[in-house]
Amino acid sequence: MAIDFDPRPVGVFDSGIGGLTVLKELAYQFPNESFIYLGDTARLPYGSKSPQTIRKYTEQNIDFLIRQNVKAIVIACNSASTQMREFEYKGIRIYNVIDPGAATALAKSESGRIGVLGTRATIQSESYALTIKQLNSQAQIFSIACPLFVPLAEENWDNDPITNLIAFRYLQPILQENIDVLILGCTHYPLLKNSIAKVTGSAIELVDSGMAVCDILRKDFEALKIIPGFTSDSQNSDTNSTHKREIHLLTTDSSAHFNQLAQKILLPTIANHFECVNV
Amino acid sequence: MAIDFDPRPVGVFDSGIGGLTVLKELAYQFPNESFIYLGDTARLPYGSKSPQTIRKYTEQNIDFLIRQNVKAIVIACNSASTQMREFEYKGIRIYNVIDPGAATALAKSESGRIGVLGTRATIQSESYALTIKQLNSQAQIFSIACPLFVPLAEENWDNDPITNLIAFRYLQPILQENIDVLILGCTHYPLLKNSIAKVTGSAIELVDSGMAVCDILRKDFEALKIIPGFTSDSQNSDTNSTHKREIHLLTTDSSAHFNQLAQKILLPTIANHFECVNV
Repeated sequence: MAIDFDPRPVGVFDSGIGGLTVLKELAYQFPNESFIYLGDTARLPYGSKSPQTIRKYTEQNIDFLIRQNVKAIVIACNSASTQMREFEYKGIRIYNVIDPGAATALAKSESGRIGVLGTRATIQSESYALTIKQLNSQAQIFSIACPLFVPLAEENWDNDPITNLIAFRYLQPILQENIDVLILGCTHYPLLKNSIAKVTGSAIELVDSGMAVCDILRKDFEALKIIPGFTSDSQNSDTNSTHKREIHLLTTDSSAHFNQLAQKILLPTIANHFECVNV
Repeated sequence: MAIDFDPRPVGVFDSGIGGLTVLKELAYQFPNESFIYLGDTARLPYGSKSPQTIRKYTEQNIDFLIRQNVKAIVIACNSASTQMREFEYKGIRIYNVIDPGAATALAKSESGRIGVLGTRATIQSESYALTIKQLNSQAQIFSIACPLFVPLAEENWDNDPITNLIAFRYLQPILQENIDVLILGCTHYPLLKNSIAKVTGSAIELVDSGMAVCDILRKDFEALKIIPGFTSDSQNSDTNSTHKREIHLLTTDSSAHFNQLAQKILLPTIANHFECVNV
């Protein structure tokens, strides 16, 4: 039996810890795949920076991951995704979180009235609004930048009275617009899901852009647009038993705080390897 | 009459807007001096990053300012100051904010019980505690990292119920220690002075590390350790009337948000020149 597989890892990057919410889901959904996660912690956050600077950093991170011999790259960061919408870059398949987030929101919305939360960079880019409008010109988009959500997620203050208050203040203007779907347009925001849901209530469905990109990857693995790391057969056969999948966490800054939070977010998945790198 | 002056600018740098509170005071106190301010906005904030990365960025910023032909450099950032305590670097006089902040706090404290607020990097370095203890081994230092204060200052939420609540939560542990002086160990924190003072009350004196470094510069100008830009005579004489002082604001990222906030913070001082640079 011919075994057709590609053991190279999938690259995932974010400015910091937010993308780990995506890596966690990818690691869960694709237990035969290896992953290299790059957190650009020496230059985080991206959401307060200019389009030009975000594009430069994104290209540097992608070039670094290509040098690590990845077979595909997930940009697990909305701010970076706004500046890298190409589906292929230097011969490598690239997955941004905007396109799947926009499509998922539209599929879930009955009224076509969709809210978007994001960093200043993501909201100013209007990437979600433009993408949704291209898919359905009748849709109405209401966007709000939430600059304090990333530091609140990094403080680990979900479901905290202060975070609830801040969520209420940020969200109030778009809650008045009768939206039925709200895109969490930053991969940090699922870390504040309880506080956000407390403000939106059950009538508004939250769309996690990071989860949406995982669905696209699943389809592309099934369609063999990405060649799987191991078949179930190869994984179980004795001859390939040494081919265990690997999960490497790389950061551009050494930080005990990041490593601790990373391990907590990824549980029950365990990373094999931590390293501080220059991109 | 021999005119002895040095028209070169004084360099000032911070990761972002916090150091502008220092530049504003310097520009006010030294109306004959030119200044070049460098905000490393492409890599801000520093307070969440490792000592090694902060040192690397600080050296790059200082090298950049030296290439701009400055006569002295003020590190208007506590996180950067913790990693650059030399008083001279590559032949240039360097002013950090830790030493003057520590000395001022000790001079103002009657009980010797001193609180310190700062970024995670500043508090973990223990720079204030070690410096104060070297000056007076009897002093007792109580430190708290306040990671949300920088983004709150950048949101411009001073004197806001949410900021008051966050200040209360951060400060509560050290308020129980009967401190009589509290060091604002981050140049962003004076931008939240109203919220912090609401929590501390009038019995605790706030020490602004940025103001403390201005006092040291004044002494060094008077002692001619730094040669003034212009004498009053030269400033007023017809032959030198073209020698107006200049204030240049340089950033490593282009940001409309920074430029707007910068102009607001500096008022009534007006910057002559804005530019985005690579360090």
